[in-house]
Amino acid sequence: MDNKKIVVVGGVAGGASSAARARRLDEFAEITMFEKGPNVSFSNCSLPYHLSGVIPDADSIVLMTPEQFKNQYNIDAEVNSEVTDVDTDKKEVEVKNTQTGELKKVPYDELILSPGANPIMPNCIKGIDKDNVFSVRNVVDIKKIQTYLEVNKVTDVAIIGGGFIGLEVCENLAQTDKNVSLIEASGHVMGTIDDDFAELVHKELYDHGVNVVLNDGLAEITDDHIKLGSGREIKSQVVIMAIGVKPDTALATKIGCKLGLTGGIAVDHQYRTSIPNVYAVGDAIEVSHMITRKKTRLALAFPAQMQARDAVDHIYGRTVENRGVIGSQVIHVFDINVASTGLTENECQKDGIDYRTAVVIPKSRVGIMPDATPLYFKLIFGYPSGEVLGAQALGKSDVDKQIDIVSTMISMHGHISDLTHLEVCYSPWFSTAKNAVNMAALVAENVLNGEFEQIQVKDVRKLVEKGAFIVDAREPAEYEEGHIKSAVNIPLSQFRQRLDEIPTDRPVYVHCLTGQRSYNMVRALNNRGYNNIINIDGSYLALCEYEYFKDQTTDRKPIVTNYRFDLL
Amino acid sequence: MDNKKIVVVGGVAGGASSAARARRLDEFAEITMFEKGPNVSFSNCSLPYHLSGVIPDADSIVLMTPEQFKNQYNIDAEVNSEVTDVDTDKKEVEVKNTQTGELKKVPYDELILSPGANPIMPNCIKGIDKDNVFSVRNVVDIKKIQTYLEVNKVTDVAIIGGGFIGLEVCENLAQTDKNVSLIEASGHVMGTIDDDFAELVHKELYDHGVNVVLNDGLAEITDDHIKLGSGREIKSQVVIMAIGVKPDTALATKIGCKLGLTGGIAVDHQYRTSIPNVYAVGDAIEVSHMITRKKTRLALAFPAQMQARDAVDHIYGRTVENRGVIGSQVIHVFDINVASTGLTENECQKDGIDYRTAVVIPKSRVGIMPDATPLYFKLIFGYPSGEVLGAQALGKSDVDKQIDIVSTMISMHGHISDLTHLEVCYSPWFSTAKNAVNMAALVAENVLNGEFEQIQVKDVRKLVEKGAFIVDAREPAEYEEGHIKSAVNIPLSQFRQRLDEIPTDRPVYVHCLTGQRSYNMVRALNNRGYNNIINIDGSYLALCEYEYFKDQTTDRKPIVTNYRFDLL
Repeated sequence: MDNKKIVVVGGVAGGASSAARARRLDEFAEITMFEKGPNVSFSNCSLPYHLSGVIPDADSIVLMTPEQFKNQYNIDAEVNSEVTDVDTDKKEVEVKNTQTGELKKVPYDELILSPGANPIMPNCIKGIDKDNVFSVRNVVDIKKIQTYLEVNKVTDVAIIGGGFIGLEVCENLAQTDKNVSLIEASGHVMGTIDDDFAELVHKELYDHGVNVVLNDGLAEITDDHIKLGSGREIKSQVVIMAIGVKPDTALATKIGCKLGLTGGIAVDHQYRTSIPNVYAVGDAIEVSHMITRKKTRLALAFPAQMQARDAVDHIYGRTVENRGVIGSQVIHVFDINVASTGLTENECQKDGIDYRTAVVIPKSRVGIMPDATPLYFKLIFGYPSGEVLGAQALGKSDVDKQIDIVSTMISMHGHISDLTHLEVCYSPWFSTAKNAVNMAALVAENVLNGEFEQIQVKDVRKLVEKGAFIVDAREPAEYEEGHIKSAVNIPLSQFRQRLDEIPTDRPVYVHCLTGQRSYNMVRALNNRGYNNIINIDGSYLALCEYEYFKDQTTDRKPIVTNYRFDLL
Repeated sequence: MDNKKIVVVGGVAGGASSAARARRLDEFAEITMFEKGPNVSFSNCSLPYHLSGVIPDADSIVLMTPEQFKNQYNIDAEVNSEVTDVDTDKKEVEVKNTQTGELKKVPYDELILSPGANPIMPNCIKGIDKDNVFSVRNVVDIKKIQTYLEVNKVTDVAIIGGGFIGLEVCENLAQTDKNVSLIEASGHVMGTIDDDFAELVHKELYDHGVNVVLNDGLAEITDDHIKLGSGREIKSQVVIMAIGVKPDTALATKIGCKLGLTGGIAVDHQYRTSIPNVYAVGDAIEVSHMITRKKTRLALAFPAQMQARDAVDHIYGRTVENRGVIGSQVIHVFDINVASTGLTENECQKDGIDYRTAVVIPKSRVGIMPDATPLYFKLIFGYPSGEVLGAQALGKSDVDKQIDIVSTMISMHGHISDLTHLEVCYSPWFSTAKNAVNMAALVAENVLNGEFEQIQVKDVRKLVEKGAFIVDAREPAEYEEGHIKSAVNIPLSQFRQRLDEIPTDRPVYVHCLTGQRSYNMVRALNNRGYNNIINIDGSYLALCEYEYFKDQTTDRKPIVTNYRFDLL
């Protein structure tokens, strides 16, 4: 039998992984990988870190050269080579040398498409094709931006889009003393978290001097400013577009591959397209969500690598199990880390999934250890099933630790009862004895069992406005340092002597600093027969974080006398 | 009905958690907690950190005072109060004031024992009762040590026992410029990891100036030195005993509670002892292992807290689910972190459980990011079932992240196939695109499927001694910097042209730096029909770490020309 001919289109995550896996399974296959750009196997996720100099040498972002592919894996990695067409009957690709224009035909037995996704660049925006408009997709892009910034001594940059790439570019540029504006068309940055946690990201950006503009879109680009939909003008000599990516389906469409509902290339559970012997993997394909079972797209490195592996395994007759994606992610933004997995509240609402949440804010490690910082953690679970649906975490510590636990639990279709007693690592150096995940699960179990009522911090402003009775269960000295304007201070340590101050004819909302003391008071009052006591989930700390950014950037009146962002 | 009377014996993790949980469930219960020491609710895990000044104020280790228990939770926390006897018919405890000797009787409806465990102090050791011999159980102990060290201007300390407390005390004292000796009777420190990973801990201790003595026990203590079983004498004006703890079952035994096979108090799945209305929780009880189903003991804070909660929940008619323990742990030792969960290889061997391992050493984050350090990770899985049984991780990064993923998977009875595609958080700032856990699971799957053979680094010395054929698959420049003395350098990038150098009449052992390149070569050679090719799991990096300490501290001959501890 002849050696198998494998052709791979695209030389980054999915492509390079496909080729390398094929070689491991078949030493004699003829493997050719075509990349239209000048580099294969670069770390696209690392690109923004060149802008700040965290990665000083842009060329180091290229992890393997074509020579290394040849020497180590006997793989032909051809750069500047665009696959322009495929004869799927003859099983032959047409490849154009992008530098010479030369065309050649290359036969295949199996074809793997890993074309990736392109930054969205809406034509309707005036000036979108100007020289000072960039996107971040590859090493060439990032070099171009860096050169342009230096040559033109740029001082002001506008980043359009508050997703992962937008935020990372924002952080890295802000650290080079540029004036950075971040323009986000929706109400908050990061679609992967909800508005409550996003407000903490807004605060972090604002505190680091980023001009954060929400609910406003890009309308026009000139040499020295951008104009937004609202008419507002913002100084910027460079615009970086990061409003999202769309799957690069040009070749797939041309050769007749079916697309899915979401616009990605449709594949079966073995990553086969609708055309025989043509596979597709990576950012260009449509995948299934493990929880909702719906079709979705997910432009992340790890799923791309695993899809590549699975596609090649299938070519070689191996069983492929496709469990779908959950979308675990983490980002570093200035001094904080933000991670999430599974469904957000917003996604649950859109999909008609009934859910509840539990927010806890323990310290990142035992409080008497130095550098113990608040760890904001939200668990989202199905109601009434108690299934773990998602989680969000934010803080200065490695919050991906908590999210990875939840990701694992979601993958195993776990319930909150599986998280309450989950035995993870503890030492004062690393965490609290009850991990944030345990704490949230215990709260969640109480919520599920209807043991107490709670509301979220985003509802507190309305309560204050309508004059609700709010109890601040902290100690008087803490109250003095800053409190909700209309709150009454009845500390947990005094309430049993001051029960007559707690009304029985209307709802009583209780908070403390993080929710722990208020929770104890709520339970005690419930036990005492008070039946309209509601805990404010996340309490003062989460409230301050939630309110801060809008209080600073709009002319509304703060509902607290002073903000507090630290723990005891 | 009268208010329920709950008496708790012991005021630390299990005791304080019991009392607080009881209050949350029952606002009107009369809750009394007796602690024989002067403090309740202290962070015993944090004690060693006072010795270095990381926690400057020893009193801050006490998290709550009796006054706070009274004010906040209406709980009577009585310190210096030892429960000396229980009349289980009358349901009454006898309490002795340890300062006045006064006795009183206190009735209970439900009694919860949380007496903890005592440091083992073998009477057979001459001098064990001297004033310069200490153990670390509470705040009083740690203050005593600190005072003694200062008053006597101690320069040399011997720590007996290389478990968690011993290592933490060792690290914290070494950071105050004391000369520290660590004496461990077995072949390696930390029973929670295997000898291969323990060698990396030995290296860390050795590199930080600790005098590590293995396979030798304490025989005699004098004012200025200790004498070991071997006859060796070691200078030390202070001895800290940390060879382990034994459950404090004195009261339980006296009142007739049955003990279990391991010497801990026997409890049912609801933490009831053999005596009606008497519960027991924490370090003093015997628990069941989730994997082996065997009885065991586990002196850890989180399980104690949850047992306390569950016992009280049961008192109040709630369902308690007892899934057993897995023993997840983490420790910080100088510049490295060491974490583990589930079974070790050693435990598998003892229990007759067939298993295999997969060792990977990826970087802690994408290699082009600053401070990417080696992450040593070992996955232990059942053979042939593929069940996840345990894991060990070590490195400068937060390795508890990887172990928590595995802990979660073990709790959900996961298989390695559940880990291969597990989608956890990735960004170059935090990890590699394929997490160490994914990588190890992929290797494990290959091992399970018999796709290639491997041996562990601990077997390499024997190979060298018997003149086995070892291929070093790294590049020549790397080989020059240090290599296994008898290894032949055939780089992955050259082997296809040098096949004639690879023998077919005997086993060929292949390694590279971390195992990635050697794995590729092994597969390629297998594909080419070579059928006796064996990968060295962990490769040169793991080998150097494994060999280093013994090479430095014994007169045996190193098998490498130079050690290497970094990544590319």
